[in-house]
Amino acid sequence: MKFTYHQIIALDRLYRANLINSITGFKSVALLGTKSENGNLNLALFSQVFHVGANPPFMGVLFRPESQLGGNHSLKNVRNTEYFTLNHITANIYKQAHQTSARYAEDISEFDAVGLTPYFSENFFAPYVQQSPVKIGLKKEEEIPLIINGTTLIVASIQELIIEDKFIKADGFADLHAAGSITCSGLDAYLSTNKLARFSYAKPDKPIENISY
Amino acid sequence: MKFTYHQIIALDRLYRANLINSITGFKSVALLGTKSENGNLNLALFSQVFHVGANPPFMGVLFRPESQLGGNHSLKNVRNTEYFTLNHITANIYKQAHQTSARYAEDISEFDAVGLTPYFSENFFAPYVQQSPVKIGLKKEEEIPLIINGTTLIVASIQELIIEDKFIKADGFADLHAAGSITCSGLDAYLSTNKLARFSYAKPDKPIENISY
Repeated sequence: MKFTYHQIIALDRLYRANLINSITGFKSVALLGTKSENGNLNLALFSQVFHVGANPPFMGVLFRPESQLGGNHSLKNVRNTEYFTLNHITANIYKQAHQTSARYAEDISEFDAVGLTPYFSENFFAPYVQQSPVKIGLKKEEEIPLIINGTTLIVASIQELIIEDKFIKADGFADLHAAGSITCSGLDAYLSTNKLARFSYAKPDKPIENISY
Repeated sequence: MKFTYHQIIALDRLYRANLINSITGFKSVALLGTKSENGNLNLALFSQVFHVGANPPFMGVLFRPESQLGGNHSLKNVRNTEYFTLNHITANIYKQAHQTSARYAEDISEFDAVGLTPYFSENFFAPYVQQSPVKIGLKKEEEIPLIINGTTLIVASIQELIIEDKFIKADGFADLHAAGSITCSGLDAYLSTNKLARFSYAKPDKPIENISY
């Protein structure tokens, strides 16, 4: 089956949303925790989350257009307070994580609404998710509006990373499979993983070797 | 274990690269195909690939700093020709896919070097990977330099999408697990998936239902 740009534009809205959100590949998925200036806690599910750089340690989060509310109490809080967290989800909490995407009123804490536990680290403003095996504390460094479709890219520095020692290999690699982190697909599908392999750094004219995984 | 920003900055370079590239979560991973103005084919592995919007259908690809070559014959070709492809990888071709990340000379086709087959669609400039179950043809719409660390975000429109009918559900959702697409973690780990569930659209005060998956 081949879809062209014009065929995609002509599709039913929901069909297109399902199709285009799913064909980009399996995604990083995390709960984004914020605290408003009034002290309200907010938690929202994000899958447009990616690595931007290791040194300094930067991540990117793409926020939907402000006209489409939903996750944008998060954006408001990130703008006003600069701090937020990203928390991996596991098979134990993915149903609660999905439920955070409902449009709760701004003064409702999604932690309370879905039954997840806020965890505060010393000296960090935004709430983590206690149940998450990988907790990342971030500070907004740059806000880049993507004029082309009204989305907003936040580039943020990693201020804290909380993960059990046993999930970090000797070379620094974090074993997310062992930690129980899951991935998502499209708007509403969740999947666990199976290890295939880790490979050595590729060089021309040298065969790839397997790394213990 | 808790790492702070300053502890991360002080880590050994390779340890930090492994840690920070892996903790962001499981990633979309795809082979990016281009053709140079001279007609040379190029293929490179990318995992900073994400959904930007469904209408119009946009994706984003983050390119590493130009000072760190490697994937940047790709960026040069995208700049000069505007067209590129993203091709999902499966357990049948992930070793070849990883090998494309070796620093081949600019006039070497990674298709030839690693043993993958270029596929040309009618009227589309850039090469797809024949062996890939999901082939996406893209046109550069906007180039956004992330001054903060020298990376480059390319926002591109989906011009073509090639996928077998049987992998598309009635509601438009593309079943990547059935297609055999895999995910990656960090710089060098590859994982296959297991379906957990698809969930209905979340609403406050309404329980989530499972969607057939």
